Amino acid sequence: MKIILDLDTGIDDALAIAYTLAQPKAELIGITTLFGNVTVDLAVKNSLNILDLLGHNEVPVFEGAAHPLEEKDYQTSDHLHLIHGLNGLGNVELGEPTRKKEQQSAVDFLIQSAEKYQNELILVTAGPMTNLALALQKAPDSMKKIGKIVSMAGAVTTAGNVTPHAEANIYNDVPAAHYCLTHDVKMLLVGLDVTLKTMITGKEINHWLVNNNRASQVFVDFSNYYYSNEYGDSAIGGALHDPLAVALALYPEWLTDSIMQNLTVEKENFAYGRTEADLSKLKHTQKSSEIAIDIATDEFIVDFISSVERVLSLGK
Amino acid sequence: MKIILDLDTGIDDALAIAYTLAQPKAELIGITTLFGNVTVDLAVKNSLNILDLLGHNEVPVFEGAAHPLEEKDYQTSDHLHLIHGLNGLGNVELGEPTRKKEQQSAVDFLIQSAEKYQNELILVTAGPMTNLALALQKAPDSMKKIGKIVSMAGAVTTAGNVTPHAEANIYNDVPAAHYCLTHDVKMLLVGLDVTLKTMITGKEINHWLVNNNRASQVFVDFSNYYYSNEYGDSAIGGALHDPLAVALALYPEWLTDSIMQNLTVEKENFAYGRTEADLSKLKHTQKSSEIAIDIATDEFIVDFISSVERVLSLGK
Repeated sequence: MKIILDLDTGIDDALAIAYTLAQPKAELIGITTLFGNVTVDLAVKNSLNILDLLGHNEVPVFEGAAHPLEEKDYQTSDHLHLIHGLNGLGNVELGEPTRKKEQQSAVDFLIQSAEKYQNELILVTAGPMTNLALALQKAPDSMKKIGKIVSMAGAVTTAGNVTPHAEANIYNDVPAAHYCLTHDVKMLLVGLDVTLKTMITGKEINHWLVNNNRASQVFVDFSNYYYSNEYGDSAIGGALHDPLAVALALYPEWLTDSIMQNLTVEKENFAYGRTEADLSKLKHTQKSSEIAIDIATDEFIVDFISSVERVLSLGK
Repeated sequence: MKIILDLDTGIDDALAIAYTLAQPKAELIGITTLFGNVTVDLAVKNSLNILDLLGHNEVPVFEGAAHPLEEKDYQTSDHLHLIHGLNGLGNVELGEPTRKKEQQSAVDFLIQSAEKYQNELILVTAGPMTNLALALQKAPDSMKKIGKIVSMAGAVTTAGNVTPHAEANIYNDVPAAHYCLTHDVKMLLVGLDVTLKTMITGKEINHWLVNNNRASQVFVDFSNYYYSNEYGDSAIGGALHDPLAVALALYPEWLTDSIMQNLTVEKENFAYGRTEADLSKLKHTQKSSEIAIDIATDEFIVDFISSVERVLSLGK
């Protein structure tokens, strides 16, 4: 399998990169970037730096959307700075990247890869759905050839994390999410319904320090920043939102319960950003979204910790 | 099986009574009543009148809660009058009942029946969860002996029908619903997620007129009132909310998709009345609520139409 990660590269995106690189059955053929946890400039920079740190400079990085579909710019919030740091990596400084992003745009790379690999390609989006929406608008037939699209996005049976309704990746570009979810694109949504079951703490990840190299120290440092701040308590820790999307893309057997729905995103009223069933399609027998509801949490966390440790041992 | 219907007897509650009386495998041993679609006085009156009309004066009717747990009274809204009529039966007048309600309270009848029939008893609540909460508070051990509790309540993956968040039965007594859902009571929730898949119109139910008796004319008249007003368009029709709860209680094979969650009800913020996963219990392996997500719609509707027609043919 070929895999593309579409990232707004903050801390759990960085963990998703490491986790993906550890997978024997998937080849990471590129990272597409966009605004979200950070600005797109920082998403590019962080992606290049993480790949370098892990010794994977063969993976190309593409710049994508700088702002939501219907807006002209994007600024990160104080709340995001608290969770991901001012630089998106818990204020751990990695300097300027040793190589450059690709010239090709993220959207064109997505479309080209869809055509090239078709059913063999997995796309995991872990930021807003803006790049995906733009690619779908530009080349819907090509994009629908992708074998599997998994999005860390939404909160269907749980409350949101930005508002009582809205999960961050949806909230950051509601029109893009609305476009993707209502255009018959088959997707697995890995939202807060399941990602909140993957909370880990420094206790688990400090184990990576057995590697005794810079990569492991950097990963432990920014992870601890995240675990201390996502819920304001290092004993509670943080959720492995983005790595879980990778895991469920590659190990469908870890998805122990899910439901099929035709979803929409509330665009109008005060539940802005809520992912919910599209009432107009409630009786349709064809359903485009699969919503993850329950997972094999322990299997995933054990695999995540050991896989990332293995990747880190080969890093700088 | 023995079955108790807990009703705020408006139009779809009346349909649920008829549908239950048609079931060969369940004996309707009583109707407990409460406020909701109508005041409790009207719920008692309408239940007695519907049973009389259908020739089932052997079924006792018990008066229950007149108002929500934490309030002192209850008044029906203009919106409810629009859907169920001023009298709860689409303004179809049935006069004064020919018999009286029981002296025993609804709550005591629920508790007594729970002890008497235990696993053999099915309780279907189709109004606010107030009677259930009061019975659970008074005799939790007895109530937990009930074989199956099915509630027409909630909107987990869909928007609400009173607010963008809240379904009417939950909204009408949020503290009661919160109590029931968070006290480890095993329940099947038949909410808007599935009941909105059961929209029917006058076209379907006018067929009952083949019976050519008063009961059928009354049922067709108040059903047409409901179908014209629930969504303001007789061509769209109305949903068989309460009958579906009875159906899924008796025919579990018609429940084609469901999820297990530990639910809570939002009591505080602006999503007041939303039924959502309890984040504090997200990782618990024991789950108390089963949420209906998909159903065999056609099987149910065909059975509903023909079952009610059969019951009506034996009515006055």
